[in-house]
Amino acid sequence: MMKITRPTLLLDEAKVIKNLERMRKKASDTQTELIPHFKTHQSKEIGDLYRAFGIDKIAVSSVKMATYFADHDWFDITVAFPFNVLEIPIINQLLDKGVRLTLLITEVSTLARLSSELKASVNLMIEIDAGYGRSGVSSQDQASIQKLCDSIDDLAHLNLYGLYCHPGDTYHSHSREEINEIWQNAIVEMNRIKRELERPGLKVRMGDTPGCSIVNQMDGVDEIGPGNFIFYDLVMNYLDVCDESDIAIAVACPVVAKKAKERQLILHGGAVHFSKDHLFDEKGQKFFGELVILNEQGWSSIIAKAKLISVSQEHGILSVDQETYDAIHVGDVVGILPIHSCLTANLLKEYQTVDGKLYEHLEKVF
Amino acid sequence: MMKITRPTLLLDEAKVIKNLERMRKKASDTQTELIPHFKTHQSKEIGDLYRAFGIDKIAVSSVKMATYFADHDWFDITVAFPFNVLEIPIINQLLDKGVRLTLLITEVSTLARLSSELKASVNLMIEIDAGYGRSGVSSQDQASIQKLCDSIDDLAHLNLYGLYCHPGDTYHSHSREEINEIWQNAIVEMNRIKRELERPGLKVRMGDTPGCSIVNQMDGVDEIGPGNFIFYDLVMNYLDVCDESDIAIAVACPVVAKKAKERQLILHGGAVHFSKDHLFDEKGQKFFGELVILNEQGWSSIIAKAKLISVSQEHGILSVDQETYDAIHVGDVVGILPIHSCLTANLLKEYQTVDGKLYEHLEKVF
Repeated sequence: MMKITRPTLLLDEAKVIKNLERMRKKASDTQTELIPHFKTHQSKEIGDLYRAFGIDKIAVSSVKMATYFADHDWFDITVAFPFNVLEIPIINQLLDKGVRLTLLITEVSTLARLSSELKASVNLMIEIDAGYGRSGVSSQDQASIQKLCDSIDDLAHLNLYGLYCHPGDTYHSHSREEINEIWQNAIVEMNRIKRELERPGLKVRMGDTPGCSIVNQMDGVDEIGPGNFIFYDLVMNYLDVCDESDIAIAVACPVVAKKAKERQLILHGGAVHFSKDHLFDEKGQKFFGELVILNEQGWSSIIAKAKLISVSQEHGILSVDQETYDAIHVGDVVGILPIHSCLTANLLKEYQTVDGKLYEHLEKVF
Repeated sequence: MMKITRPTLLLDEAKVIKNLERMRKKASDTQTELIPHFKTHQSKEIGDLYRAFGIDKIAVSSVKMATYFADHDWFDITVAFPFNVLEIPIINQLLDKGVRLTLLITEVSTLARLSSELKASVNLMIEIDAGYGRSGVSSQDQASIQKLCDSIDDLAHLNLYGLYCHPGDTYHSHSREEINEIWQNAIVEMNRIKRELERPGLKVRMGDTPGCSIVNQMDGVDEIGPGNFIFYDLVMNYLDVCDESDIAIAVACPVVAKKAKERQLILHGGAVHFSKDHLFDEKGQKFFGELVILNEQGWSSIIAKAKLISVSQEHGILSVDQETYDAIHVGDVVGILPIHSCLTANLLKEYQTVDGKLYEHLEKVF
């Protein structure tokens, strides 16, 4: 591993490949097409790893991200975020480059402008909210869904391709059974909508990593679009959706001070590296990451009784037991597994693989 | 204002100047020296605004940030973060450039290595923890403080300059009286330590924005080092430390969808723009920002009964009353005042002034 002197995002590429293999197999076993979401890694080099698995369609969460990946030879991109009418000029630039674009639609009011200002055709998916409560037309609101369909039919350049659902309530579930239940309900809803629309050709895409990881029964789903699975993180580990050994990124943090009385290590590693996402331990205490020990090959399993209990802008406070306290010294570099890998990668903006390569992140260069 | 199509950090320069004038006056009234912390803005252009106020000494929260500002002609820099022994080579590069550096010390174990590897002299401040519980030697631990002093005296290149205290517990206070009390206790502690050390020449620097903004009695304090005051934010407004009209940044967010039943607006503006810092409203509901209406001169006062109640990676959900719901349309751009300006600026990485200039942020370029 390269010499590390400040907070650095480490990437275990072998774990990334394993995570990809597993999700590729899930798609194959369930006869769905894997159209991975690239918002988690936002990296051209990590994107290249997907190509070896035959992936040529991707999703992103912003038009900016679509532009970045189009610049790196991805030509079939879903912008999996409610269509923003202000970005039509950039959408046209993408179409000029020959990108096949799929946009998410929820608002009938934006369609006429989209149609008239577009320079070429786009695919549209109607985003359906099957209970998560974020964006999307409520699955109960068949009238609005029908109206969107009809409007799309009437307008040039707009091709209705499918129904998109991100059942993100799985992130707040309490068991694998609950994740399964959320998915089965959403699948039923998506297919009921299709039937009522009398559009058997519409593709159904389902989005979230928890569901894509553990659900095995996917009849009625054509495409899966998980993103986080490429790295996983502590949220996924606590949801019992991945093993801790699947977590493919860790943040290397220098130890700058020790507080003997409190058995705490002060790290350079704070909210500008981890964000402020957190979990709660069995005692209800908030924490922002867990400790691993770095080695030449990557990092150890999680060290028990050690938690990142506080982060401010640059500081992190790691609470540990006496044995760990005694074993770690000021000037050491420790590893912290992140609560939420997407936000952590977005903040650190560059990957260092455990064998010393540097991979870029969109936020560093674009 | 320039045309905005995606989440954009707006800066009201006139408010920045007013905030600077007010803090400059506070320093003058209290006979302290203002050594502002630059971690909040991290911008060369905003840094230049301080020069007009006679500021030539600054603090930063990382060696990386020190390097950025040294590249922009700041030659007296305190790295207000516990000294990281792994960064001595970069510290030497800064010394080579002629920067007068002040480092924060808490660990006696690092001093010998610092002394032997340094190419020139540095100032040291002992960081004191007067009750906040983050970094710093406990103010109760006079023996360790004495030991640090003695070690510094014995070693080449190390000049003991002062005592540094960031009484960050003011951020969690419940009244201006409590902030005052935290400060007065810390001032008493810092001066008791000085007396017991028998070092009357040591400078005492106090750090946080809440205290620097409202405390008027600063006898026994030589230097103040606030950072956040340059922008303020909703945390400071809720602490009654600033007026909402002092908040100098807002995030412009496109409205991409409306949900009539829930009276919610879906914004492009999420955790990658605001972080996940939050406050709680009077009903105990978490929120991540408040609404303002953008205009040619900047933005309105806060719109009542409107809160950013949820953020995921790119999505924000703004809950509003019926009147506001009816007045805002898909395709509009609204303003959101941030909970925590330092983290928001760090994520958006570029400022657009309300009169259309672009100011850089370290994280975009370095």
